[in-house]
Amino acid sequence: MAQQQIELKRGLNGVYFDTTESSDVMPEGRLIYRGYDIHDLASKSTFEEVVYLMMHGALPTRWQLADFDAALKAARKLPPEVIDIIVKVKGAHPMDVLRTAISALSAFDGETETMGKDANIRKGIRLTAQTASIVAAHHRIRQGKPMLEPDPSLSHAGNFLYMLLGEKPDKDTAELMDRDFIVHLDHSSNASSFAARVTASTLADLHGCVVSGIATLKGPLHGGAAEGVMKMALEIGDVSNVESYLAKKHANRERIMGFGHRVYKAEDPRARHLRDGSALLAQKKGQPKWFQILSKVEEQMRPYAQRGICVNVDFWAGSVYYLLGIPEDLFIPIFAVARVPGYVVQVIEQQGRNVLIRPLVQYVGPHDQQYVPIDQRG
Amino acid sequence: MAQQQIELKRGLNGVYFDTTESSDVMPEGRLIYRGYDIHDLASKSTFEEVVYLMMHGALPTRWQLADFDAALKAARKLPPEVIDIIVKVKGAHPMDVLRTAISALSAFDGETETMGKDANIRKGIRLTAQTASIVAAHHRIRQGKPMLEPDPSLSHAGNFLYMLLGEKPDKDTAELMDRDFIVHLDHSSNASSFAARVTASTLADLHGCVVSGIATLKGPLHGGAAEGVMKMALEIGDVSNVESYLAKKHANRERIMGFGHRVYKAEDPRARHLRDGSALLAQKKGQPKWFQILSKVEEQMRPYAQRGICVNVDFWAGSVYYLLGIPEDLFIPIFAVARVPGYVVQVIEQQGRNVLIRPLVQYVGPHDQQYVPIDQRG
Repeated sequence: MAQQQIELKRGLNGVYFDTTESSDVMPEGRLIYRGYDIHDLASKSTFEEVVYLMMHGALPTRWQLADFDAALKAARKLPPEVIDIIVKVKGAHPMDVLRTAISALSAFDGETETMGKDANIRKGIRLTAQTASIVAAHHRIRQGKPMLEPDPSLSHAGNFLYMLLGEKPDKDTAELMDRDFIVHLDHSSNASSFAARVTASTLADLHGCVVSGIATLKGPLHGGAAEGVMKMALEIGDVSNVESYLAKKHANRERIMGFGHRVYKAEDPRARHLRDGSALLAQKKGQPKWFQILSKVEEQMRPYAQRGICVNVDFWAGSVYYLLGIPEDLFIPIFAVARVPGYVVQVIEQQGRNVLIRPLVQYVGPHDQQYVPIDQRG
Repeated sequence: MAQQQIELKRGLNGVYFDTTESSDVMPEGRLIYRGYDIHDLASKSTFEEVVYLMMHGALPTRWQLADFDAALKAARKLPPEVIDIIVKVKGAHPMDVLRTAISALSAFDGETETMGKDANIRKGIRLTAQTASIVAAHHRIRQGKPMLEPDPSLSHAGNFLYMLLGEKPDKDTAELMDRDFIVHLDHSSNASSFAARVTASTLADLHGCVVSGIATLKGPLHGGAAEGVMKMALEIGDVSNVESYLAKKHANRERIMGFGHRVYKAEDPRARHLRDGSALLAQKKGQPKWFQILSKVEEQMRPYAQRGICVNVDFWAGSVYYLLGIPEDLFIPIFAVARVPGYVVQVIEQQGRNVLIRPLVQYVGPHDQQYVPIDQRG
């Protein structure tokens, strides 16, 4: 049979698979959540408010927020069976542990098989809280440290830092983590949210969709850049080495981590919030070095900004986590803590007016191999 | 900002996202695995040979097959920690248990983080064996029955039936299960294989990709039709009720389960192999009723075949499993046992010449919501 003439869209680059009302990533350097500019939300709102906004479509009143926050807090404690499971797999990569534990939670959520927006919001609230608790619990367990009870006086971000690091964060630090979560919450059709939507489009349950998202986020082409930037900063070691480091990278035509974005052709609007946070922590921790190194890298790279290669969100995120004392292999899990409610929002949207996501793949192999019995194969 | 004119491809229907050499689903009713017709493979080959073919691109010699088979058999026993995890989540849907257990296996596979085709084949062989063992182990555990040791004298399919049902299958029955696995192994860009490829395209590890596939297969729009057909047969109850049942369905414009396919516009070439199997089992088990009912449904629906609405693979699969004494909630897990090596093959293909799979989604919400402080919201 003659090969048909087919238009290949490798990687589906530039193909629109649906419409969305959750977030808009605009090439000129704007990020919109349900109509609101990310700068307003990052500087004036809280993660809890923004999760509510994304799930319900409007910012909450004080009473709506109180109920929502109570539901989040009520879900912070993990079922003991899931803690046992985390103990069993504690030696795995934290993203594998998170994926396994979220998958296991389906056995203990009374609404796993209940479909529809309302049930998905309830499950999504629980999963948002539980994701933070899993990352924190696993880190304590693998260090041989006791797990900590959630503290209901702390915000989602503050409680996460407390359960992870064993120390109640000060107000600035909790707010920085809160801002980090806000800017990482949703980002249009990124690869992991798209994976969650593909899963959702078969009308699979929410836990499975979130598991797909987590599995996909782990890949170094998606969630891994913050780790790479911090490795670069450690490799540079001192601000006086920045120029020679970059010169060598340029000479070898190697990529500098934390620059450029598939959509943004100007500033990544999330970056400045973490830049401010990195500066704050540098001062607070008395470790100005990393901020100085990264600032110098940014400055040296400025000529590329005119060609649309700007600092992206990962550039500053790594130094923030590093200064908080968080090990590198938790950088992606922290991304996941912020992004899980984003998956929930996109799954609800997908199933709200669902169509199965099933593109085609072009077969380019032979069609007429003759079957040869095994003893005649050579 | 004015909305750009954008061509929406909802569900990516008709869009080609890449090329493949693994399988071709041809509208005229042919299914090709690496150049071989499915009818040759289903009638002349074994599941082990076909998995080898799919992974390596050529049918094995006897010696290659012996090594491959030894590797499969060596991986049948699950790590005790994974069995403990299955016990913890035993009350969940079998697909959730399978998803959790495969995710957990990443903690115990020495090559989880090793990338590349060779490592993926080794891990893929292990995952193929382990998937069958998980489904069987969970079913035994939830029934309170002792788990069974794998029997190295049995084929992959035969051993699966033995570990699941506690009885060594006769030759015909083992061969029928083997044929069922062969025809379900791969199927071009189905939703779950596509999900596995989306995950693979971030360069995530194989376990995560397979987990995405499993999560997606669970959805009733993908893996669930065999269950629906058997429910229909049970509802009909007797061959004399077929005509009135169908008349009522037609009058209410309801869909008849197990008919039609998004690509095949003629016979689904997989169906006949399970039709033969269903007939065989009906006779062997002395329960001709279900085969008679389904044959009558097929006969009554023949006029629709001219319009391209033919019996699909799910139509006969359900009755086969039912007659084997397998409960309905295991129909999709059995599909998974066959399809996991298909995911492995497509992941290897994706990562062999990778490009990130990241389509766009069109934002249709507002851009200029004014942020109002919480106490002024009403």
